[in-house]
Amino acid sequence: MAEPLSRRDLDFLLYEWLDVVALTERERFAEHSKETFDDVLSLSADMAVQLFAPHNKKADQNEPYVGDDGRVVMIDEVHEALAEFRKSGLTAGSFDEELGGLQLPNVVGRASLAWFQAANPSSSTYPFLTIGNANLLTEYGTAEQVDTWVKPMVEGRFYGTMCLSEPQAGSTLADITTKAVPADDGSWRLTGTKMWISAGEHELSENIVHLVLAKTPGAPAGVKGISLFIAPKYLADGTRNDIALVGLNHKMGNRGTTNCLLNFGDGTHSPAPEKGAVAYLVGEEHLGLTYMFHMMNEARIGVGFLATAIGYAGYLTSLEYAKTRTQGRPLDNKDPSSPPVPIIDHADVRRMLVAQKSYVEGALALGLYACTLVDEEQTTDGQARADAHLLLDVLTPIVKSWPSQWCLEANNLAIQVHGGYGYTRDYDVEQAYRDNRLNPIHEGAHGIHGLDLLGRKVVMNGGKGLQLLVSTITATVERGEAAGGEAAEFAAALRTAVDRLAEVTVAVWSAGDVTVSLANATVYLEAAGHVVISWIWLEQLLAVGEKQGDFYDGKRAAARYFFRYELPKTGPQFDLLASLDRTTVDLDPAWL
Amino acid sequence: MAEPLSRRDLDFLLYEWLDVVALTERERFAEHSKETFDDVLSLSADMAVQLFAPHNKKADQNEPYVGDDGRVVMIDEVHEALAEFRKSGLTAGSFDEELGGLQLPNVVGRASLAWFQAANPSSSTYPFLTIGNANLLTEYGTAEQVDTWVKPMVEGRFYGTMCLSEPQAGSTLADITTKAVPADDGSWRLTGTKMWISAGEHELSENIVHLVLAKTPGAPAGVKGISLFIAPKYLADGTRNDIALVGLNHKMGNRGTTNCLLNFGDGTHSPAPEKGAVAYLVGEEHLGLTYMFHMMNEARIGVGFLATAIGYAGYLTSLEYAKTRTQGRPLDNKDPSSPPVPIIDHADVRRMLVAQKSYVEGALALGLYACTLVDEEQTTDGQARADAHLLLDVLTPIVKSWPSQWCLEANNLAIQVHGGYGYTRDYDVEQAYRDNRLNPIHEGAHGIHGLDLLGRKVVMNGGKGLQLLVSTITATVERGEAAGGEAAEFAAALRTAVDRLAEVTVAVWSAGDVTVSLANATVYLEAAGHVVISWIWLEQLLAVGEKQGDFYDGKRAAARYFFRYELPKTGPQFDLLASLDRTTVDLDPAWL
Repeated sequence: MAEPLSRRDLDFLLYEWLDVVALTERERFAEHSKETFDDVLSLSADMAVQLFAPHNKKADQNEPYVGDDGRVVMIDEVHEALAEFRKSGLTAGSFDEELGGLQLPNVVGRASLAWFQAANPSSSTYPFLTIGNANLLTEYGTAEQVDTWVKPMVEGRFYGTMCLSEPQAGSTLADITTKAVPADDGSWRLTGTKMWISAGEHELSENIVHLVLAKTPGAPAGVKGISLFIAPKYLADGTRNDIALVGLNHKMGNRGTTNCLLNFGDGTHSPAPEKGAVAYLVGEEHLGLTYMFHMMNEARIGVGFLATAIGYAGYLTSLEYAKTRTQGRPLDNKDPSSPPVPIIDHADVRRMLVAQKSYVEGALALGLYACTLVDEEQTTDGQARADAHLLLDVLTPIVKSWPSQWCLEANNLAIQVHGGYGYTRDYDVEQAYRDNRLNPIHEGAHGIHGLDLLGRKVVMNGGKGLQLLVSTITATVERGEAAGGEAAEFAAALRTAVDRLAEVTVAVWSAGDVTVSLANATVYLEAAGHVVISWIWLEQLLAVGEKQGDFYDGKRAAARYFFRYELPKTGPQFDLLASLDRTTVDLDPAWL
Repeated sequence: MAEPLSRRDLDFLLYEWLDVVALTERERFAEHSKETFDDVLSLSADMAVQLFAPHNKKADQNEPYVGDDGRVVMIDEVHEALAEFRKSGLTAGSFDEELGGLQLPNVVGRASLAWFQAANPSSSTYPFLTIGNANLLTEYGTAEQVDTWVKPMVEGRFYGTMCLSEPQAGSTLADITTKAVPADDGSWRLTGTKMWISAGEHELSENIVHLVLAKTPGAPAGVKGISLFIAPKYLADGTRNDIALVGLNHKMGNRGTTNCLLNFGDGTHSPAPEKGAVAYLVGEEHLGLTYMFHMMNEARIGVGFLATAIGYAGYLTSLEYAKTRTQGRPLDNKDPSSPPVPIIDHADVRRMLVAQKSYVEGALALGLYACTLVDEEQTTDGQARADAHLLLDVLTPIVKSWPSQWCLEANNLAIQVHGGYGYTRDYDVEQAYRDNRLNPIHEGAHGIHGLDLLGRKVVMNGGKGLQLLVSTITATVERGEAAGGEAAEFAAALRTAVDRLAEVTVAVWSAGDVTVSLANATVYLEAAGHVVISWIWLEQLLAVGEKQGDFYDGKRAAARYFFRYELPKTGPQFDLLASLDRTTVDLDPAWL
């Protein structure tokens, strides 16, 4: 089996491009060094390959089910791998030392986790949702809540979830109907149904800490009436809370992660006088969605990494296949008695490989860059902090959506490289394709991120977010122009594209009708994503500089592919946006 | 459940656009009328919906397996549906009356079959492969072979296969190693292994007629040494031939169709003195691949229809979902207490629906148009016949590949419209996505068709194929320009695109190095495909003319979508091709 991720690439991105060692000069990371980072990455790679990768297919083929006793049953290997993960202390990667964490930079923590996501997307989801949950509570919970719930999560003993969606409310959280009423003891009682809850029920941890959005009595309609609650599977005294597993969803892929329909307060587990699942308010009433965005933004970056990791594993798998599978002859060889060549000798196969490389390495680089913004925000103040925050805010829809679209396309190409074999369940790439199809759906469907980017992120604060993105990209363009050669050629193309992005944003908002302005928000998201990834490739090319060797030539080739085959796709997208096209606005549903 | 295909659309395409009733003026179809065509379509729709659609999911969830007795076991519903299909006489649709056929125009026969492909892609494959097999033998077999094998296939009692690929030779048939040696009685004996044989083994028919490519003693290397044989599962005397099922492939989708690894002549079924499976030569030695292309070309059109049908069913399913699922509010409605609207009210959902509509209706129209060329070829002579043959030859790679790519994308969008529900196995669209992923792989992988189109079809006969395509499209452009309005606007865009297609073809071949010329053959295939589908949409728009009503407005909207969102994508593709880009040519595998 191929390695699921490339350590060489990670080293390049972390050390040669992002210079994460420089972070150790900051007080928060002063205990760290390149050696500690390396150790974490090596440990992660080893554990991912040895404990997580081997049961990836088995977990897909033996999905969790509800046993006769109502408990969720899954293959032993998941329990074993997660037990080892817990012992390794990696759950605690980026948490503060005072919480028992390693206080690693976020970028190193994410790189560590990416190994597990690449090796086994489903099993890795359990601890990774937990990290986001714990981060939210660290930020907004009381000291007591942190002690009670966060510390066991950082230790890996408890796992966490995010309970947002309901059967009738996925993309529109304004419409949730789960109710919270105050109890006499200061806690709350929840009643309602939550849908699509990943890791919502299992026997993998001592407890499950659900973070639940609900509405309190008299709350205003819409998102301003949403509050956030902690509702654990087991209460502090060990009693089962009244949270019932109604059923597991049976998915196309990502089968190893349980995905649940949960009833809160239906009386299944606590036929007590006070109806409802016991819950504890986080922060203030009505600010729940604001708090939840802390976890959602983190989860969105996490989904970007998940999509990237699955794409990366598929790329390396198809690369290995292409080097060993023989078939056909070069086009200029007409001698049928000559031996067939490895399929990587065919230009079209190399096209499918370098396309994958440009998608997955581009996505990984963008994800890691986003993490450095988290680190910036955490270790700077004033304008630097504000800028990091703003840039991350603007980039988040792209960090989530671009890999979800293009690393899925990478998996599509990975199947194609394999031919018929890739379509069988004997090979790994078909599962990757099924697993990755989840990512454009959850944590905000693809179209929602288009609305978020064009409708909010690029226009908020008088358009400062977009200005910052444009000036950041333009700074790279100027370095590229100064570098000469291919970098200058690509910089010129990128300058044109980023200028158009800025112009088109203005043009779209000049429509004077929000429905028209946002009608093609998804096209805008996709075009902006390609501009951003082009920028990330120019950044990588500049980091390569004059260095020699196959690895660097590979980076050059992938950058070249992206600038020649991919960035030009934005031209027609910008044209469409600038035209304020009304095709979909004017489309009567009766015509379909 | 939604209908899997639209009779209204078929009626439009067949009667309002292609005027298939005019075919009844030709001698071959003189017995037919609009009424007989309508009856066939109605019968097909009814049977498809009542007998095939209901077990589509069940067959996916209960895939065929090899029982203890070595026989293939599948759910009863497949047997029952195919038995009824046999009784209906539809297998015989386009066959000559003297063979027991209905002598329907090919275009009507394919429209009939499309209902079954849309309702149940897996079950429909068994009879449809049979039709192609029987057509080949009708063309190239002896009278005795036609009597023995074709007639029972036309009756639906025997099923057929095409045995081309081997484990080491899929895209490169030159490298097959299955051997044929002459036996004393004038028949032949085959030994070898065939891979990816759809419908290669089952208990659905009285017999299975395998058409097998093999090499005879002393045959030249390469494709010029390939001969074609009939090798039946059961010999005329009822004895089992020595063709052994080694195993069934377990696929991501299309699970209801058995896909087999078969051993010919390994002694399993006939431990006779003369080693090998009994086989009968078709036509002359060494011309096997030429004959097989008759079936392959038909199968390629069939795969285009299969991809289209799966995409179509997904479109209609997601359309129904979008009309009934409520979520969110219009962007200009800020009142969270107002009721949520059907998701079809959101422009981005309509974008995903009209995109699907443009893909699946465009693909269906192209497929039916291709069938009219088959009918032309069969009922005309001289230049008309030659032109029909040539145009079909040029179009075949697109008829196969474009739906395989874009109707799969339609299925991708159908899932996205459903949100999380679409990712579950409770809904139908995830299976459609898995089923359709087969189509860019079999019957010539996607890249192979790029090589076929750019490397052969557009340059053969001194480029006459391309000239004919360009002049055919240009004739439509001129009608569009004369029509005025949107048709003229789109015609102008199409004129530019088809001119560029012609220019770029010349530019690519000016490279003077076949490796460079063909390096981006897949990009060429995709660009040419979009030009062709734009032409087909302009054709439909002209057929709509001034007609009023939702149906016609829907055609207008889909044409508009295709010309505004899709055709412009070809601009960067043509730029890349014209640049003779060497990115993939110069790419050293060591860099990946």
